[in-house]
Amino acid sequence: MAATLSLLPPTSLRVHFRPKFSIKASAPVLTQDDLKKLAADKAVDYVKSGMVLGLGTGSTAAFVVDKLGALLQSGALSDIIGIPTSKRTHEQASALGIPLSTLDAHPHLDLAIDGADEVDPNLDLVKGRGGALLREKMVEAASDRFVVVVDDSKLVTGLGGSGLAMPVEVVQFCWNYNLVRLQELFKEEGCDAKLRLDGGGKPYVTDNSNYIVDLYFKTPIRDSGAAGMEIAALEGVVDHGLFLDMATAIIIAGGSGITVKTK
Amino acid sequence: MAATLSLLPPTSLRVHFRPKFSIKASAPVLTQDDLKKLAADKAVDYVKSGMVLGLGTGSTAAFVVDKLGALLQSGALSDIIGIPTSKRTHEQASALGIPLSTLDAHPHLDLAIDGADEVDPNLDLVKGRGGALLREKMVEAASDRFVVVVDDSKLVTGLGGSGLAMPVEVVQFCWNYNLVRLQELFKEEGCDAKLRLDGGGKPYVTDNSNYIVDLYFKTPIRDSGAAGMEIAALEGVVDHGLFLDMATAIIIAGGSGITVKTK
Repeated sequence: MAATLSLLPPTSLRVHFRPKFSIKASAPVLTQDDLKKLAADKAVDYVKSGMVLGLGTGSTAAFVVDKLGALLQSGALSDIIGIPTSKRTHEQASALGIPLSTLDAHPHLDLAIDGADEVDPNLDLVKGRGGALLREKMVEAASDRFVVVVDDSKLVTGLGGSGLAMPVEVVQFCWNYNLVRLQELFKEEGCDAKLRLDGGGKPYVTDNSNYIVDLYFKTPIRDSGAAGMEIAALEGVVDHGLFLDMATAIIIAGGSGITVKTK
Repeated sequence: MAATLSLLPPTSLRVHFRPKFSIKASAPVLTQDDLKKLAADKAVDYVKSGMVLGLGTGSTAAFVVDKLGALLQSGALSDIIGIPTSKRTHEQASALGIPLSTLDAHPHLDLAIDGADEVDPNLDLVKGRGGALLREKMVEAASDRFVVVVDDSKLVTGLGGSGLAMPVEVVQFCWNYNLVRLQELFKEEGCDAKLRLDGGGKPYVTDNSNYIVDLYFKTPIRDSGAAGMEIAALEGVVDHGLFLDMATAIIIAGGSGITVKTK
């Protein structure tokens, strides 16, 4: 089901969300960051005092963490425990005074909120372009509910369809062997596999000391369920960016306002 | 099919392999190491000049590597390229002058030879008590033939049946969370899961910077195929010690001689 909610900005601004009424060159236009922030604020509505919360990684998730910090500070929320999905998120949440714990101490989460790189009509996701896919998947799979926050540029008709990277985390040992095997798995779709590099031209190393092979698809993945199993079955693959059958709600910020999709 | 081959020791010694004829307190008894060495010598019969060879890890595999080094030295074998499955094996083979390469450069192997911790009647294996399970599985899965060398103490009626460790390699992040989940997967069999420690009481770290959770089963695993898939599906599990449908031959050294089992 999909429901377009009333817009968060005041009525006077609404025309700027509705291109069919008026777009003027001089009109203030919401940036992608404005949209992410609107969706993040909406996601935080799901949070109740006393919850154990998964804290995502990335630019949209960072707005969620900021908002949580502010609500804790103001007293509007209390007794929250956050489980960060990356070292970066840990640092951000810690600086904001959000009490933090781990999956080891809190193996059961009430709610996780995170961004995504792609969302398909089945609410399946590509995630992990930020490099935190494994910890995100561990935390979000342990949560009762998983709310995903995106701007509408992330919507695709089929996963891999954005033409941007679908990450696969692999052990460093013989990474090129696995890169070739991954590329060959997707002959039908057409796929370029590339080792992710850091800024200095060296291999990017994940929080778990692994490498990332990024897959770039020429056409969307035909059967993402089968693809997920085949990728995971390769020895030396630690995890992949297909998050299937995990999201319980998608909050989408776009030119026409905020839309919430649930299964 | 199973075939008991003629014994390698001279005829005068054979009675010591055949308890029904005579066992005397004063008779020279073959140690477990003697048996491993006999089986290793037999396995090396499969090696031909020009092969790309997977070199296993562990006490039995070390006898194989020793023998290969001797045959190269004597000129009985030539043009061998070895793909070691661990840093230890790399060092041993390198010291013996065996030319070495990697899966990256040689993704297709003719033959791999390695030991095993358990062998069941279906030729399925438990491996990795030595800690090299992931590299062993990558190399041995890439090989046309995989010959396993064991003494007869490794034979079990069902995997996990020895009561000794079945290793699972997990990322360091929230290892205890995965330890608990692994233990719960095998409630029916009864299972103790323990983090493997090094000599100094710290967690043992694999060649891939991961930890190992050892599973100790009270009764053998009921369905090893299903178990392998369920373990692999846990986020944060990198690999496990169930080597299923991989071995093409098992060479078993026991009191009654050398037996070769193939599917």
